[in-house]
Amino acid sequence: MPAVTLAELSGFLRDKGLSNRVEGDHATSVRAVNTLDDAGPGELTFLTNPKYRDMASKTRASAMIVGPEMAGPGAVPTLVCDDAYAALTLSIVRIHGYRVHPQWGISPKAVVADGAHIGENANIGPGAMIGADAVIGDNATIYPGCYVADRAVLGRDVVLYPNVVIYDGCRLGDRVTIHAGSVIGEDGLGYAPLNGKWAKIPQVGIVEIDNDVEIGAACTIDRATVGVTRIGSGTKFSNLIAIGHGSKIGEDCMFVAQVGLAGSVTVGRHVTIAGQAGVVGHIHIGDNARIGAKAGVTVSVPPGQEVLGAPARPIQETRRVLALMGRLPEMRERLRELEAEVQRLRERLDSGE
Amino acid sequence: MPAVTLAELSGFLRDKGLSNRVEGDHATSVRAVNTLDDAGPGELTFLTNPKYRDMASKTRASAMIVGPEMAGPGAVPTLVCDDAYAALTLSIVRIHGYRVHPQWGISPKAVVADGAHIGENANIGPGAMIGADAVIGDNATIYPGCYVADRAVLGRDVVLYPNVVIYDGCRLGDRVTIHAGSVIGEDGLGYAPLNGKWAKIPQVGIVEIDNDVEIGAACTIDRATVGVTRIGSGTKFSNLIAIGHGSKIGEDCMFVAQVGLAGSVTVGRHVTIAGQAGVVGHIHIGDNARIGAKAGVTVSVPPGQEVLGAPARPIQETRRVLALMGRLPEMRERLRELEAEVQRLRERLDSGE
Amino acid sequence: MPAVTLAELSGFLRDKGLSNRVEGDHATSVRAVNTLDDAGPGELTFLTNPKYRDMASKTRASAMIVGPEMAGPGAVPTLVCDDAYAALTLSIVRIHGYRVHPQWGISPKAVVADGAHIGENANIGPGAMIGADAVIGDNATIYPGCYVADRAVLGRDVVLYPNVVIYDGCRLGDRVTIHAGSVIGEDGLGYAPLNGKWAKIPQVGIVEIDNDVEIGAACTIDRATVGVTRIGSGTKFSNLIAIGHGSKIGEDCMFVAQVGLAGSVTVGRHVTIAGQAGVVGHIHIGDNARIGAKAGVTVSVPPGQEVLGAPARPIQETRRVLALMGRLPEMRERLRELEAEVQRLRERLDSGE
Repeated sequence: MPAVTLAELSGFLRDKGLSNRVEGDHATSVRAVNTLDDAGPGELTFLTNPKYRDMASKTRASAMIVGPEMAGPGAVPTLVCDDAYAALTLSIVRIHGYRVHPQWGISPKAVVADGAHIGENANIGPGAMIGADAVIGDNATIYPGCYVADRAVLGRDVVLYPNVVIYDGCRLGDRVTIHAGSVIGEDGLGYAPLNGKWAKIPQVGIVEIDNDVEIGAACTIDRATVGVTRIGSGTKFSNLIAIGHGSKIGEDCMFVAQVGLAGSVTVGRHVTIAGQAGVVGHIHIGDNARIGAKAGVTVSVPPGQEVLGAPARPIQETRRVLALMGRLPEMRERLRELEAEVQRLRERLDSGE
Repeated sequence: MPAVTLAELSGFLRDKGLSNRVEGDHATSVRAVNTLDDAGPGELTFLTNPKYRDMASKTRASAMIVGPEMAGPGAVPTLVCDDAYAALTLSIVRIHGYRVHPQWGISPKAVVADGAHIGENANIGPGAMIGADAVIGDNATIYPGCYVADRAVLGRDVVLYPNVVIYDGCRLGDRVTIHAGSVIGEDGLGYAPLNGKWAKIPQVGIVEIDNDVEIGAACTIDRATVGVTRIGSGTKFSNLIAIGHGSKIGEDCMFVAQVGLAGSVTVGRHVTIAGQAGVVGHIHIGDNARIGAKAGVTVSVPPGQEVLGAPARPIQETRRVLALMGRLPEMRERLRELEAEVQRLRERLDSGE
Repeated sequence: MPAVTLAELSGFLRDKGLSNRVEGDHATSVRAVNTLDDAGPGELTFLTNPKYRDMASKTRASAMIVGPEMAGPGAVPTLVCDDAYAALTLSIVRIHGYRVHPQWGISPKAVVADGAHIGENANIGPGAMIGADAVIGDNATIYPGCYVADRAVLGRDVVLYPNVVIYDGCRLGDRVTIHAGSVIGEDGLGYAPLNGKWAKIPQVGIVEIDNDVEIGAACTIDRATVGVTRIGSGTKFSNLIAIGHGSKIGEDCMFVAQVGLAGSVTVGRHVTIAGQAGVVGHIHIGDNARIGAKAGVTVSVPPGQEVLGAPARPIQETRRVLALMGRLPEMRERLRELEAEVQRLRERLDSGE
């Protein structure tokens, strides 16, 4: 990585619309961004979480990004930024940039079936397999070990990391990124009971993933039984997430690791679902709702509501109940004392005292 | 897809033993099945969940399947069936059929080790790898990127979707289907504590999967430490399910996504385990038991019992406790009022009133 | 497997420091270890869990290992060992040994990019891909379908089972074993909010896995945004575990299946986390702490503490609260009776009785 001075970085951030100032030596140069704990000489660190303030004075970094509320006589030259988190993001972009993929062209060791259409400048790694009548968009990168089944359609600039599997007929928009090992379009759990056995219902729908979605590693998104399972544009998934058949997720949502949605769930726009939460089938999660970690959502959630717990309730209710649960031992003690006192009162009355 | 008329479909269903009648134009033809929301002209939709009744009047589909209880003056020609869900399943089979796999024969780009036996008409994709002394049954389909390790034995008509891994010596019956990325027979978490370190116990057992099992995507089924981890015939798994070493699951069970079983669990026949539920080791789940979503099962469950909660209890008990938890704020208020009232009574008694 | 007599096995265990004695015919020979339920003639079984004592009398095995507390007039010749679990482990090692990997050398069907360095006696399967400037240690085994990205560094005797993906620049120590389908170093969920959209923060850190770590199947370990996500030496993971970006896990921990850690968590040494537990970001789990199954850990856990529940609390507290929850119906009934009794007392007082 080439070095950049704080003066240059300050100017870069200002050009991007982030007001900032340098405190200390403007000529300080940095070659990498690193955490407070791990950064060393030649590196730029950051203090965006007040929890780590104590560590800031001990950093071995050469420079630091901080927000105005955390500015002070810094141990090292400092970039003070109104929006320190955005400044950090852009500094990483400026200093490190995004991943550059290996360039395979269309590897002679890739397998491209008859009738597949490969876009311009597509980059298909060795061992990747593109099925019959599949379409790969311009500038797409398909890493080794991926399987794009028959009739699947991938947009421009799609990136499939190694060993991603796209089942037949599924459709990905432009700039969709899918991390290693994820599976898109497998059959859902669709069986009809038949004399005590499970008869398979053909799963003939597809998965559609809209533009600018990023999916983590080892996720599984069921194809619809009929129709479409959809992930709306701009939505981001972490890892090991399961989406049931026919669910439809809106735009710009964020799902944390190990979330599970049953089938036929509809999710609005900009919904956040925290880690290990689950949602039962056939309900609706409104726009901007927030589902807490490990929540078990059993009824529809109105727009903007934050829920927590299993079964999930509005967060204030759940917190109140959780607090009272912690006070159950005390409540039981008070109950005991009351019983004793009432007993004493009754005896006094009985004795005509 | 070739079109089929309602008259033809009605006859097909009757031949399969499903009584039904057509209301409206028998000559209406449909080419695909789709959901109430998404179906358009030329498509057949269905109303099997009363929750969606309102949407039925607005459908753009050309025809609809309904149960007798939901029949009425339909907006579109209608197939009224006593068992609408079965009729829907069979209509999807009739109109769409099951997935047809690409035909690779034994791809010259597959790798078949010495001593492996490949059955007749087996279909081994490019990049699939079959280990030494492994057996692949007749008509099996092994998609690209699968790894079938040494001495594994797969029955007739097995389907392994891309990137499935079968560890050494594991055995799959006939018609077993495993979706992409699942792993069968990895070592379980078997270590003996030794001076504060973990000493690995060789995991020398296997996994046996009986006939007609279907496993979803990205599941992991540990081989037994010694002996066998078994999945009984007809059992169906969704995605991201973890089965610990030595567990034995009966026939015709259904496990929803993200279920986890620890080791040495025994599960009876026709057990349902809902999403994200977990079961501790060394217990037994009886035949026909039903484990609710997110349940944490810590003790054996008798046959036929339905449990919920963490720790899991019979569902009525858990529901009662959950309801009372919601009333904790009220209970505490009543406790407070009682204390005040008892205080007043005592004061009246004390004052000799 | 060649047969071994009880006399030989007894000597072998004694040589390893395990005191033991043979009861019954010392010449009894066994060729395999198996469970009480499944063992047959020629096999050695074991009774280490008192729960299964009844089954011991019915075993069809030829011999048995038991602890001194469970010794008795055995149905079959018996090895009585002070540490029966250690004896079982070593007997499996003696009789079965560890897995022997197929030997591919550097398969001509593997793809090794320019500048990659492959150590002596490394074993690279067909279809494995080693990226530019990657380093593979001596005696490492890379199964088919693995992808080791550019600049990744793997130590001596590393084993990657099929379809493991190591992202660019990640580092594995010596004797690290990773089971099939796991992904090391994918991008974490790092986005900055920007006008209602999520702007990707380049994830430029790496994952470092220290010596002697074993990772199960289908796990996902995020690379750090900047800096390092670390798994300490000797730590063992089961399957389907998600580790968030920048988390640092100490030595000799054990994580059971489906555990999830958010980002920037620090975990001490010898910590146990049971199945399906989750830990929120930016907290610390102290040395030797124990996290119960399905726990939701929301605050730091002191060294040595055992926690349970969601939110997780010290196990005694959680157990007390859980017990009281089960008594909520009773508590409500007592509340009702108290209210009635106080009402009666007030009426007696009011009536001047």
